[in-house]
Amino acid sequence: MSQPIPRIVRATVTPILISDPPLLNVLGVHQPYTPRTIVELETDTGATGVGETYGDTEYLEVARNLAKAVIGKPLTALNGLHDLAYDSAGLTPGTVNEFDPAGLRGARTNEKIVRSVVSAFEVASLDTLGKALGLPVHALLGGKVRDRVDYSGYLFYRWAEHPVEDAPRDDWGAALDPEGVVRQARRFTDTYGFRSFKLKGGVFPPEQEIAAIKALAEAFPDHPLRLDPNGGWSVESSVRVAEELDGKLEYLEDPTTGIDGMAEVRARTGALLATNMCVTTFGEIPEAFAKDAVQVVLSDHHYWGGLHATRELAALCRTHGVALSMHSNTHLGISLAAMTHVASVIPDLEYACDSHRPWQTEDVITEPHRFTGGAVEVSDAPGLGVELDRDALATLHERWIELDGFRDRDDVAAMRQADPTWVQPPLPRW
Amino acid sequence: MSQPIPRIVRATVTPILISDPPLLNVLGVHQPYTPRTIVELETDTGATGVGETYGDTEYLEVARNLAKAVIGKPLTALNGLHDLAYDSAGLTPGTVNEFDPAGLRGARTNEKIVRSVVSAFEVASLDTLGKALGLPVHALLGGKVRDRVDYSGYLFYRWAEHPVEDAPRDDWGAALDPEGVVRQARRFTDTYGFRSFKLKGGVFPPEQEIAAIKALAEAFPDHPLRLDPNGGWSVESSVRVAEELDGKLEYLEDPTTGIDGMAEVRARTGALLATNMCVTTFGEIPEAFAKDAVQVVLSDHHYWGGLHATRELAALCRTHGVALSMHSNTHLGISLAAMTHVASVIPDLEYACDSHRPWQTEDVITEPHRFTGGAVEVSDAPGLGVELDRDALATLHERWIELDGFRDRDDVAAMRQADPTWVQPPLPRW
Repeated sequence: MSQPIPRIVRATVTPILISDPPLLNVLGVHQPYTPRTIVELETDTGATGVGETYGDTEYLEVARNLAKAVIGKPLTALNGLHDLAYDSAGLTPGTVNEFDPAGLRGARTNEKIVRSVVSAFEVASLDTLGKALGLPVHALLGGKVRDRVDYSGYLFYRWAEHPVEDAPRDDWGAALDPEGVVRQARRFTDTYGFRSFKLKGGVFPPEQEIAAIKALAEAFPDHPLRLDPNGGWSVESSVRVAEELDGKLEYLEDPTTGIDGMAEVRARTGALLATNMCVTTFGEIPEAFAKDAVQVVLSDHHYWGGLHATRELAALCRTHGVALSMHSNTHLGISLAAMTHVASVIPDLEYACDSHRPWQTEDVITEPHRFTGGAVEVSDAPGLGVELDRDALATLHERWIELDGFRDRDDVAAMRQADPTWVQPPLPRW
Repeated sequence: MSQPIPRIVRATVTPILISDPPLLNVLGVHQPYTPRTIVELETDTGATGVGETYGDTEYLEVARNLAKAVIGKPLTALNGLHDLAYDSAGLTPGTVNEFDPAGLRGARTNEKIVRSVVSAFEVASLDTLGKALGLPVHALLGGKVRDRVDYSGYLFYRWAEHPVEDAPRDDWGAALDPEGVVRQARRFTDTYGFRSFKLKGGVFPPEQEIAAIKALAEAFPDHPLRLDPNGGWSVESSVRVAEELDGKLEYLEDPTTGIDGMAEVRARTGALLATNMCVTTFGEIPEAFAKDAVQVVLSDHHYWGGLHATRELAALCRTHGVALSMHSNTHLGISLAAMTHVASVIPDLEYACDSHRPWQTEDVITEPHRFTGGAVEVSDAPGLGVELDRDALATLHERWIELDGFRDRDDVAAMRQADPTWVQPPLPRW
């Protein structure tokens, strides 16, 4: 009477390059193309599903090994993926590499790379399972508690164009001062209805970014605002900005690096501090929470290890009276679908999530999501509710084959194209 | 192409009384009959499933309200059960009642009652969903990482018979001294193969229980041992026992009550302390972990709020370097199935779980589990892998109707049947 659980018979890992605008941050500028990894699974019952994660070489290598290792495994064996990823990649837990210069993803550890890869396989498994069963992914996670997930408009200082030839272009123009930022926000909210804004800071001296926030506050008095310099400021600068912007920010994100620095800024200003750099692994939680270093953890379901792990993180945050919201790095619609499903099942999501997705002009799904009223609707279709666009996938993979200089995201190197003297700025920068 | 998610069309709550031996603890003795609640769900697609939880009047009332409230809800809407239980029962979170004299379940709060009831509905939903999909419950939780779950032999001081007429009897005889405890352990391990033992203490002065542990250690040198006086000792007594039994216990469970007392015992002795009384809700975790009051949390999936919540608790414990194992109160096979499924998906389960089940002579499932080698096999059959025995359920429900004096478990009142002068002992007792 018991049917066997479907087993994985095919796992395909496809590296792609997606075009990315010249968005500025503390380390430099986004490359014209950024790598992502697309994972496809198929079971012995013919069910299929997709996942997406970071695409840098280290991640891709782990993903390719895991793709071999999952063959023959039950589709539902999600809890075993973590150990399988370590084993198949020949990695050992706990090895800490250097601070990640490229993605601003906090501590760069084998654990984070493994978890980021596992997340794509977990999501692909849930998509496959959901499609096989006729259930949306949120239902496999205990059911949505909201029908729409709010995202915040993710504002960037940016150039009009990349400083290299043949780079992708768009018509957003430059945003390098308060007026440019307000103009960008206006178009963002007109197009997508965003009801809150985050400005990626750390690009100009704090005073200029304070001015930009003040201009946004004046132009959008009802929109909660956030500023994220990616750890670009000293504690003293952070305190100064927090005091200067007191009452104007919903929260301040990663003003400075490190648990002790964040805790000092918090203690001296009472400002609400969010992070996707100071706390990016479970191991960092006890000390950071004990020191009150962060009040909002911005989860990235990729590097926390998937959708079940995000739920677990949410429980940790809830238990310790810390809020949870969501971080984003450059991503496509598969990840946006995964983010939206998991966000829909977490009861106490107080803040609009971040997403870079509006900046992307390409996607690998046939019907990219639409942001309306600043939100994405939670799909009730089976699985993630997305369909892979095979032509687009093939095109973006071709690009990955051809443009082998972009396979590792490096915002410092990209900046050097414009300014040959540019070196990775030591943090704090101001 | 998208099928609608099955909806609940029937939810039946059946209170039952199950026979229980005269097992002794710090507060008194188990009643001859103890209440449990059995929950049955049915969907519009004809799928059915079962859950089990505590049966005292307060729990039953919440369960009956929730049974009405879930009608028409999607079967997968597990994340909404908690709020639905509060709303339907007209309860408000946070109300703290008195310390529970009956079940030794730690703080008695509306939250715990609600979560205990939710757990039965969550388990019944997962059982129903699993049966509808052909998937075992563990697969719905990310897949088992072990095929068997170890349980420890749960030893009790006990009388041969209940002190009241017409009470259920068994042939285990009395165990009121070290020899009796060793004899009981021998039969337990001969019958079920248990490879570790827990002795429920707090019944006799500590010296007698120390003697029992020493006798067990001598008789079973390879079996890890635990002693649980349910908070019956002062800090001084706890320290004395911990020192006296240094090296003989796998852990000491709830030697004394309260976070500060436990933390002091830990600090003074270095003994590993487990609990199902000091930390029984998420709200108690931050202070208890910060003070190093407990090193092993014994989860009861009922009062932590179900199987997903148990996973979340496991993540909290893992993150803080605290071990997780499982508590048990008098229960039947539905709960044992649920415990076994969730235990099978938690990677870092270091200790054998507790289960009262071997003491029960009755069950409401057609094929009660067998303990072999001290373990229960993880079922790969759809759902929980159990089938409701309707005749048994009807019989035990009839008993609940007839014997209305046992509808709330009260070990103090039960002891008064033997000793009319017995009053609830203030803790610490020694």
